[in-house]
Amino acid sequence: MKNVIIASTSTVHGSDYLDYILDELTEFFKNTTTILFIPYARPSGISHNNYTQKVSEAFAKINKTVKGIHEFENPGEAVKQAEAIFVGGGNTFVLTYQLYKNNLIEVLQTAIKNGTPYLGTSAGSNICGLTIKTTNDMPIVYPPSFNALAVVPFNINPHYLDPDTGSKHMGETRETRIKEFHSFNTPPVVGLREGSWLQVTGNSIILKGPLSARIFEHNKPPYEVKTGTELNSLK
Amino acid sequence: MKNVIIASTSTVHGSDYLDYILDELTEFFKNTTTILFIPYARPSGISHNNYTQKVSEAFAKINKTVKGIHEFENPGEAVKQAEAIFVGGGNTFVLTYQLYKNNLIEVLQTAIKNGTPYLGTSAGSNICGLTIKTTNDMPIVYPPSFNALAVVPFNINPHYLDPDTGSKHMGETRETRIKEFHSFNTPPVVGLREGSWLQVTGNSIILKGPLSARIFEHNKPPYEVKTGTELNSLK
Repeated sequence: MKNVIIASTSTVHGSDYLDYILDELTEFFKNTTTILFIPYARPSGISHNNYTQKVSEAFAKINKTVKGIHEFENPGEAVKQAEAIFVGGGNTFVLTYQLYKNNLIEVLQTAIKNGTPYLGTSAGSNICGLTIKTTNDMPIVYPPSFNALAVVPFNINPHYLDPDTGSKHMGETRETRIKEFHSFNTPPVVGLREGSWLQVTGNSIILKGPLSARIFEHNKPPYEVKTGTELNSLK
Repeated sequence: MKNVIIASTSTVHGSDYLDYILDELTEFFKNTTTILFIPYARPSGISHNNYTQKVSEAFAKINKTVKGIHEFENPGEAVKQAEAIFVGGGNTFVLTYQLYKNNLIEVLQTAIKNGTPYLGTSAGSNICGLTIKTTNDMPIVYPPSFNALAVVPFNINPHYLDPDTGSKHMGETRETRIKEFHSFNTPPVVGLREGSWLQVTGNSIILKGPLSARIFEHNKPPYEVKTGTELNSLK
């Protein structure tokens, strides 16, 4: 039975790494002693070791031990043996490239299907969608595919950002970008604002956190759903 | 001899499509009657016909006729025969996908090398770099490669945006994204602010427009260059 948290971000403005969601994670990881951390997304190019160190310090606050997947000789075995998994944010393309390179896509899908608790933030949440085609990241490496873990039957847009009506910049708004996605693709997209997450428990998918989320379906106007809404029928 | 304009944007805030650069284009296209337009980037999913219509209206102001490449049976022949070429903005991934699908990469490179005037805006400028790895666009389709036309020996970041120091959003700034690019790639990146363009004439590359540009080189702090600066040695 799936047991997954798909969080928009690791960090909300003005608080420390993972602090906003630590109470939730205490409950989520209550049967877990050691978390396998996948640092492949490397935000700002940080090394696997340094990223794992940062994550270890956050999880020490709730008495969890963290091991980086790069410390294992066989990353596939590390996933299979893991008590719980955390995939952190950074660059979604770098993350996806590394997952394919290490043959971890199916292994992760199987572990998640079998109930290994999985936490994703940002890039680690993007890969829970059908594809990474709604990432906000720069395509700094070329992955062998944009297909992702498909933990949920739709796409995720983390760090969802409402249009800045005062802006004179001619770049596209996030909403415009997601509408463009729907000119070429049909799956729904969940725009998760910072501080929001999806809790997946078996077949149940519930929006959590203080904010509403914005849902984009093909050929429909976008709409808001309140926190607590079940998104089980979205596909 | 190359004769290329690589413009950050088609439109600056508060003015019509291409208006800010029309005087320059009058000179640039002075020996041109008909411009071949490549509408593949399809901003907001606009059709090839509608996009070409919009571009025709803008170029009518300087008495140029526009033909869309989709009106030709053989797009490669259309490029070879073109008096001049304009590749408009939209989604860089959609554009790149279509260029590969229609076998236009080498054909465009040859035409540009042979001196066919080429104007790019936004996505049409991104593809003038070595790769599309510094696009700001959402990866809504999967192209067969991120390699681009390499008209210049560096990468372009159009719509370059300075950090918003007041923002509480935890998404990366443009500068952070380009620094991440340099964790995995070595070519320089030219951050072109809206209203700026690069004029390529043979081996000369000059920054034009009212603003400075921000240059990112591997393992160096980013720096500003003033309009009028020659960027011939950047590689």
